[in-house]
Amino acid sequence: MSSLPILIVGSMAFDDLELPTGSFKDVVGGSATYGAYAATSFAPVRLVAVVGDDFPAAELSSLGARGADAAGVERAKGKTFRWAGRYSQNLSSRETLDTQLNVFADFSPKIPAEFQDSPLVLLGNIHPALQVRVLDQVSRPKLVVADTMNFWIEGEPAALAAMMKRVDLLVINEEEVRQLSGEHNIARAAAGVLKMGPKQLIVKRGEYGALLFDASGAFFAPAYPLEDVVDPTGAGDSFAGGLLGYLAEKGDVSPLALRKAIMVASACASFCVEAVGPARLAGLRRDEIATRLDAFRKLQDFGGGPLPLR
Amino acid sequence: MSSLPILIVGSMAFDDLELPTGSFKDVVGGSATYGAYAATSFAPVRLVAVVGDDFPAAELSSLGARGADAAGVERAKGKTFRWAGRYSQNLSSRETLDTQLNVFADFSPKIPAEFQDSPLVLLGNIHPALQVRVLDQVSRPKLVVADTMNFWIEGEPAALAAMMKRVDLLVINEEEVRQLSGEHNIARAAAGVLKMGPKQLIVKRGEYGALLFDASGAFFAPAYPLEDVVDPTGAGDSFAGGLLGYLAEKGDVSPLALRKAIMVASACASFCVEAVGPARLAGLRRDEIATRLDAFRKLQDFGGGPLPLR
Repeated sequence: MSSLPILIVGSMAFDDLELPTGSFKDVVGGSATYGAYAATSFAPVRLVAVVGDDFPAAELSSLGARGADAAGVERAKGKTFRWAGRYSQNLSSRETLDTQLNVFADFSPKIPAEFQDSPLVLLGNIHPALQVRVLDQVSRPKLVVADTMNFWIEGEPAALAAMMKRVDLLVINEEEVRQLSGEHNIARAAAGVLKMGPKQLIVKRGEYGALLFDASGAFFAPAYPLEDVVDPTGAGDSFAGGLLGYLAEKGDVSPLALRKAIMVASACASFCVEAVGPARLAGLRRDEIATRLDAFRKLQDFGGGPLPLR
Repeated sequence: MSSLPILIVGSMAFDDLELPTGSFKDVVGGSATYGAYAATSFAPVRLVAVVGDDFPAAELSSLGARGADAAGVERAKGKTFRWAGRYSQNLSSRETLDTQLNVFADFSPKIPAEFQDSPLVLLGNIHPALQVRVLDQVSRPKLVVADTMNFWIEGEPAALAAMMKRVDLLVINEEEVRQLSGEHNIARAAAGVLKMGPKQLIVKRGEYGALLFDASGAFFAPAYPLEDVVDPTGAGDSFAGGLLGYLAEKGDVSPLALRKAIMVASACASFCVEAVGPARLAGLRRDEIATRLDAFRKLQDFGGGPLPLR
């Protein structure tokens, strides 16, 4: 059985990163880039984004070699979207130093005809009205997954509300879940968000792992306690890409498949942070992911068998 | 096979708690109290602590009825140790409003002769020099578990270093691990603490669960995402009590038993926070713990069988 194709719509960017290990300029980034690098370990990707005339063709070739079809990547006149950020010494927080939208300012995703039947759709973090516009151009996907951020939660509540009614699975971080729901307690906050439209919610908690809430209840996946975290940029996007990748490979979006996919997604995110930018993901091999999944299982292995008190 | 007895040495106290749900005065608390209530679901407890003449006999009777032998609880002239604290609206932080050591100021644990053969020892959070004094009075326990806090890490580094060389398992919270090691990254911080003496380290992360580091690697137990958290006081102590309780019941301190025990410990902590003070633990039934362990397993259940990529 061959993997289902995944439509990924999001940003492609240059990032200037100030990390504890040094300053790095012009690092290729963006939600679609990280998502596509992670997803292509499992399934073909159909990429929709916009880049400027300064974006390296080699990067699109590298993505293409992994199975990402860049037919939907528009090359516009002008400069590629650029983000600059500084991480704290312990990588637990970051501040945005500069954002230059450039060609991204006028981005309106156009889904090529041959991408419109995509069974799985990943809406990276862009304006929620644009996320809806993507959904207007595709026919009955099996699963629509979306990310968003505090900027849209604060500034575009109506567009966000409309978007949420049309997605199956929302994948956002813990602070965003709290902000969106107005609740601090994470179980209550999740219940609040699920009333807004999505049937499933994944709460990303960085080094504390991820929680899924759906009709089957809650599910928890840990983050691997890595000794060498270099660059957290793109970890959330590679989580989403790995998640969709696994579901696409299995052709299964059931609650149980989703639980397995979260383990795979956590593994992808754990590789992402090992190098600056998407470098680690760009060369990631299947056997490396399988080995890390073994480590994840060991992290939760209490010997199986009956429960301690049964 | 009957459960092994557990020696628990720590504080017994009155707590004045300012919680989002109201103010509660004279709540019975202390590390030994919470630890004993949790451990007695599994094994007989031998309690060593000090209380003043204001401490209710009914509380010692209640502990006794659950199987805690209070022969080592000294009743001194004067008032019981008292702590007052205020929790933030979302329960994520707390501040100490007042500490009155009272009879605890002159506490020097005396282990009754009939307690000196205790195979399992839990050293609650007291001065590290007193923790060492306890170990000087017991003969070759199978397992010594200790807690400590930032106050001793800052103020008593030499006594703490001596204590750590004599314990098997240190159970402390994430900030304490970072403070003790001088490392933020939790895997590096844990490796640093393990060089100080303990053979095993459990890092308590509150609502993010707990991590074990030992010679077998890392193990992770989630915290259950509860909708109704009332009072976090004593959660860490009931975690430790449940942990020792399970090991005592099984008579097994192997790495695998320890991993199962952490799941049980997390379940005990999840009950502790459901009510003000130790009220929920004081009436806790075995079948309730077993049911919560089922929920924990479901929280981590991705269908078993082969790993996703195998």
